[in-house]
Amino acid sequence: MIRAMPKWEPTEGDLATPLGFRAAAVAAGFKKTCDLLDLALIFSDSPATTAAGVFTRNRVAAAPVLLSRRNLVDSRGRCRAIVVNSGNANACTGREGMRTAEETARVAAELLGIEPSQVLVASTGVIGVPLRADLILPHLPQLKDKLSRENAKAVAHAIMTTDTVSKTCVVRSEARGKVVHIAGIAKGAGMIHPHMATMLSFVTTDASMGARMLHNLLRGAADVSFNCLTVDGDTSTNDTLFALASGLAETTVIPGNDSRAWFAEGLTLVCQTLARMIARDGEGASKMVTVEVVGARTPLDADRVARAIANSPLVKTALAGADPNWGRIICAAGYSGAKFDPNKIDVSVNNLALCRKGLDAGFDEATAHRELEGNDLLLHVDLHAGRATARVWTCDFTKDYIDINSSYRS
Amino acid sequence: MIRAMPKWEPTEGDLATPLGFRAAAVAAGFKKTCDLLDLALIFSDSPATTAAGVFTRNRVAAAPVLLSRRNLVDSRGRCRAIVVNSGNANACTGREGMRTAEETARVAAELLGIEPSQVLVASTGVIGVPLRADLILPHLPQLKDKLSRENAKAVAHAIMTTDTVSKTCVVRSEARGKVVHIAGIAKGAGMIHPHMATMLSFVTTDASMGARMLHNLLRGAADVSFNCLTVDGDTSTNDTLFALASGLAETTVIPGNDSRAWFAEGLTLVCQTLARMIARDGEGASKMVTVEVVGARTPLDADRVARAIANSPLVKTALAGADPNWGRIICAAGYSGAKFDPNKIDVSVNNLALCRKGLDAGFDEATAHRELEGNDLLLHVDLHAGRATARVWTCDFTKDYIDINSSYRS
Repeated sequence: MIRAMPKWEPTEGDLATPLGFRAAAVAAGFKKTCDLLDLALIFSDSPATTAAGVFTRNRVAAAPVLLSRRNLVDSRGRCRAIVVNSGNANACTGREGMRTAEETARVAAELLGIEPSQVLVASTGVIGVPLRADLILPHLPQLKDKLSRENAKAVAHAIMTTDTVSKTCVVRSEARGKVVHIAGIAKGAGMIHPHMATMLSFVTTDASMGARMLHNLLRGAADVSFNCLTVDGDTSTNDTLFALASGLAETTVIPGNDSRAWFAEGLTLVCQTLARMIARDGEGASKMVTVEVVGARTPLDADRVARAIANSPLVKTALAGADPNWGRIICAAGYSGAKFDPNKIDVSVNNLALCRKGLDAGFDEATAHRELEGNDLLLHVDLHAGRATARVWTCDFTKDYIDINSSYRS
Repeated sequence: MIRAMPKWEPTEGDLATPLGFRAAAVAAGFKKTCDLLDLALIFSDSPATTAAGVFTRNRVAAAPVLLSRRNLVDSRGRCRAIVVNSGNANACTGREGMRTAEETARVAAELLGIEPSQVLVASTGVIGVPLRADLILPHLPQLKDKLSRENAKAVAHAIMTTDTVSKTCVVRSEARGKVVHIAGIAKGAGMIHPHMATMLSFVTTDASMGARMLHNLLRGAADVSFNCLTVDGDTSTNDTLFALASGLAETTVIPGNDSRAWFAEGLTLVCQTLARMIARDGEGASKMVTVEVVGARTPLDADRVARAIANSPLVKTALAGADPNWGRIICAAGYSGAKFDPNKIDVSVNNLALCRKGLDAGFDEATAHRELEGNDLLLHVDLHAGRATARVWTCDFTKDYIDINSSYRS
């Protein structure tokens, strides 16, 4: 339907910028500071809405993950609402936790005039503490009453836990005279690791497409964004990425057509922007780090090397101290399991060569230290073993990470 | 040869407690504080000595690892000397690094009247800084002159880097009226991870056995000791475990005989004691943690769960803060890749149940906090999925780890 692919451009807005969405948030008391927003509702007015979800691969999946997976199947991808709380993950809470999730969906559905299977639920926060239904259900009528385009901005705040800033990304494109929007919000901070993280992210769009198409595009976008992200190597029980497509922009994305690539590009842009925001706001992080591996024998090797470097506490603490300790970088490459010749490897930070052919590149220590003091670093590793590449986003590892995580519950 | 297996008992001593060994250490200036010991020589007087080594599996192996591997082969396991330096790992130092290692072995051999292939070398410290031969070779004559049983104690100090205490373990056993000793020293602290760590460990014994037997026993002992140890998940370029057997105790270990099991028990005791010392002295560690997994479907599953828990920064920071955050423990089990039913898992610390059947066990928060304030913790995880078990040693993750590692080189 669309021949020359129009561009996607960043724009101001929130989850309700795409047509057909309303949202609201309230303070239900899950967060320690009781007036902080921690419960939100996102709703799509259009009965034609399609929905998709990508979830944690952790075997210990939280109740909201289990229920939302089921609801996406039961409704055949026709979910229209998302209820989300922060401050309690509703994970490892057994049957009671599942009942709370189910009750939440049932009551929300009744208020909104849809089927319970059309409600998606998500939770983030501490694990193992029962999520009491009586702390959620009484707030649902108020949330429904407050649903508006104006209140949508608050949702990005309501899903935050140890995040220091809210994360929103909106893009727009014009196709055949019709304006289409894709909007996304995310929360990240800790337990951030591929497949996926204690990460919640919700995407709305007014493009129109089948639920299966939306699912495939969402999975593709997650693979090159959130799944390339690691903060501490921990994969949480709750990671959830939802997308709702209202279809109200009168632009349809069709299989086997340019429109698919066009929409995939916009969706990927939103997901990658959010993923980078999460890396930058990693728990205690002082800098955002892109690890780029080129010249690998296979894509798997490239990926292994990038992840080993991005997850190495020794690399990450060196980065925190702006220490050009390239030895730790190639050491991590060495134990990644990838095949390469250690005498050929090159390592640079931004454009400064630290290591050439496995040896000190003869850089100036003070210059390298200054370079590493920046808050946006590109670690570039060339294995000279082939043509495969990989990119992973992460952050440095500071004392604040320990501070935040040694007393999270208390 | 030995029918009823005699017991092994801990005893005072050092590397020269087994008959036939002498050693010495000097300050060569590799360490920042220049009067600290950082170069040592261990020598076995007996021409009948056999030797074995177990090395890092990191693809980026340091020059001393490459040379020592070769020398064990070339000498057919007849090495009699170890030259070790701390403060510089001689890793990622190319041909020059290899020349320094070779020169060291050649000059030491000449002084000691043995073949160059009979000298093992080991280095630990910063990666990527050329190890200058002219900082080592001039000290070798002095080291040779100082060789004595009395000076052996100093070697455990000379191999330390960020270790806060030196690590020595000596055991004795009496077999048919002959006393046999096994002694070991180790350095650990950072980059501690299976297969193996920035870990050096040297074992001496006066038992007698073939080089192949010693090699097999050493590998077996490493598998249940150093390879069950993780501090930060980083596997270094230099990990080395050497054993020298002088044979002077007139007790021979023979294949297919009780003596093999008897000696294996002593060797394992020494290696496990040293491994536990390394965990306790992990960089910045305030407590030693044993992760014990039972009821796994397969040994591989047990191992995966134990290592995922022991490597989780979120678990380790919670332990630092004495926070009974069992959710993070079963979350790590969940992403380990092992198969189990999350609704059956039990978790306890020491003897206090934190989680039963995947749910909060209803423990008293203050009691749990006090329990976790101890400096020797046992995390016990029962998956109720089978009969396999695994045990891994680790430590908590404190701000001091970040302090130590963010400015290691500067």
